[in-house]
Amino acid sequence: MRATVMYGAGDVRVENVPDAAIKEATDAVVRVVLSCVCGSDLWPYGSMPHSGHGRRMGHEFLGIVEELGSEVQGLKRGDLVVAPFVWSDNTCDFCREGLQTSCRHGGGWGHALDGGQGEAVRVPQAQGTLVKLPVAEDSALLPSLLTLSDVLCTGHHAAVTAGVNARTTVTVIGDGAVGLSAVIAAKRLGAERILLMGRHKDRTDLGREFGATEVIAERGEEGIERLHELTGGDGTHAVLECVGTQDAINTAIAVVRDGGAIGRVGAAQYSQAPPDFGTVMRNVTLSGGVAPARAYIEELMPDILEGRIEPGRMFDHTVSLDDIPSGYRAMAGREALKVLVRP
Amino acid sequence: MRATVMYGAGDVRVENVPDAAIKEATDAVVRVVLSCVCGSDLWPYGSMPHSGHGRRMGHEFLGIVEELGSEVQGLKRGDLVVAPFVWSDNTCDFCREGLQTSCRHGGGWGHALDGGQGEAVRVPQAQGTLVKLPVAEDSALLPSLLTLSDVLCTGHHAAVTAGVNARTTVTVIGDGAVGLSAVIAAKRLGAERILLMGRHKDRTDLGREFGATEVIAERGEEGIERLHELTGGDGTHAVLECVGTQDAINTAIAVVRDGGAIGRVGAAQYSQAPPDFGTVMRNVTLSGGVAPARAYIEELMPDILEGRIEPGRMFDHTVSLDDIPSGYRAMAGREALKVLVRP
Repeated sequence: MRATVMYGAGDVRVENVPDAAIKEATDAVVRVVLSCVCGSDLWPYGSMPHSGHGRRMGHEFLGIVEELGSEVQGLKRGDLVVAPFVWSDNTCDFCREGLQTSCRHGGGWGHALDGGQGEAVRVPQAQGTLVKLPVAEDSALLPSLLTLSDVLCTGHHAAVTAGVNARTTVTVIGDGAVGLSAVIAAKRLGAERILLMGRHKDRTDLGREFGATEVIAERGEEGIERLHELTGGDGTHAVLECVGTQDAINTAIAVVRDGGAIGRVGAAQYSQAPPDFGTVMRNVTLSGGVAPARAYIEELMPDILEGRIEPGRMFDHTVSLDDIPSGYRAMAGREALKVLVRP
Repeated sequence: MRATVMYGAGDVRVENVPDAAIKEATDAVVRVVLSCVCGSDLWPYGSMPHSGHGRRMGHEFLGIVEELGSEVQGLKRGDLVVAPFVWSDNTCDFCREGLQTSCRHGGGWGHALDGGQGEAVRVPQAQGTLVKLPVAEDSALLPSLLTLSDVLCTGHHAAVTAGVNARTTVTVIGDGAVGLSAVIAAKRLGAERILLMGRHKDRTDLGREFGATEVIAERGEEGIERLHELTGGDGTHAVLECVGTQDAINTAIAVVRDGGAIGRVGAAQYSQAPPDFGTVMRNVTLSGGVAPARAYIEELMPDILEGRIEPGRMFDHTVSLDDIPSGYRAMAGREALKVLVRP
């Protein structure tokens, strides 16, 4: 079958690889119907050292169940399913607590395993991992439902871990797909005031449609000053950090209100929290982490099915599987917000 | 009047200073009945650069109201009161949220103001700050009630911000007075398993009496290993960081369970969070900060009055006001756990 392999920074290829096949009784094989490129794929695309054997790519996909291991229950061939970006048994203590990213028998796609940016995927722990989608394979809702695999749940995780509710003011740092998902999530959780920090007008315009009440286009110190102006110097109760750079976490600390919380979900590219975190004993909570998407899918899906949220609008570029390299280029060059892949 | 002034590392003196007196209509003057030396006083005692004019010391005290400004209501001369270590109006938005340490009209004792380690204190925002104690001036409960001014509330804040309840396992890092208070608080909130990390046997023995179920005397990597052994490799849901050093926060990150929370209340002597905080997107919450003692006094006081908790047992050394320098020496030399001052 065909699948995407990254060999190093800027070097992503679509190649013939062994067909996805059942190896364990708990596996399924899913034929990919829709996949996409993640903002986090751009980190290795920007900096991965060259590798002779390459790394399989893609951790967001939905598709049709084609084969099932003998122990998998509750699924049948032909089911349309979405996969969260980490697989999990969904029965261990961590999974029962809603932290499937720490599942005792879980793991992530790609690397040595099949990735979502290919024709098919072997899915370990299929029963715990895959969630049926109650729509047809040609539904117009598929792009929105695909966001349940990662980006929408990641934005939601930021909002949940930062304690967003109807009484909180919210800052969202970043106007990428995670940031815009965080806007959707904050709005959905009832926040009446959502300040979106981002400098790409087309993206922040979409952010306004998703629920942002104010946009701060200024960056760095200017952006922090502007946010303080807009909040009477206090900052906001919740800050959703959706970028992952040192600048972004510094900004988050600077704009969070005393007693507030930061939900950080931007894939962290920094190694040190801001010095303020240590030397000043401010009552600020740093929370977040890699999102347990599996925990949120059932909660968020009805809002998509019933049209209350439309996260699929973030896909502004579509490529075929063989054109994936151009999709990476478009996202890395900021020409595309998020790239949909139709194998 | 006599009061304690610190002039630099190791140089603490008891001197004549101007009498405490009303300056604002919202002030009170309190004659100090009982005060103490805080572990945080040892940081300047160990490292404060020499200062010609010195710094007034002491932020934990209880005493008798002697004078009241014209705007202070709800208090009368002769009332026995305890003061939290930060004063506050107790009416602003932060105070109403229980974050009196961020009060819009608040501040801390000492420095240019009167400190608790003296004969009397001018108390700003007296109506919001002072809490009446329903016991006589010679009550045997006074040492325990004095801990409401800081150390008990600080331990409680660690437990609250780390989400301690009956379902959480708890690690307490540090066997000083804050750590032992955190043990009391964790036990009080229902935690059945409390692992106390500390290497002073007399202190950890008291910790066991307060509710610690296990003691880990090993330090650094050995201590972390031991804790992992005791928790099946998972760590604990809550970690109460009651020291404030880089080692302590590193240990906290290393022993917190995925999905868990760290309540950090040790006065931070470090400037960087551990690298793991940034590079690994673990779902770990870092919370805590300077404790809003005022928010907790009414909740904790009944447990002292009714004998359910005895935090006053941490005072193992008593000095007169003039002997305060020897009290500092005893605490700095680890001969005393916590020093009571009777002016």
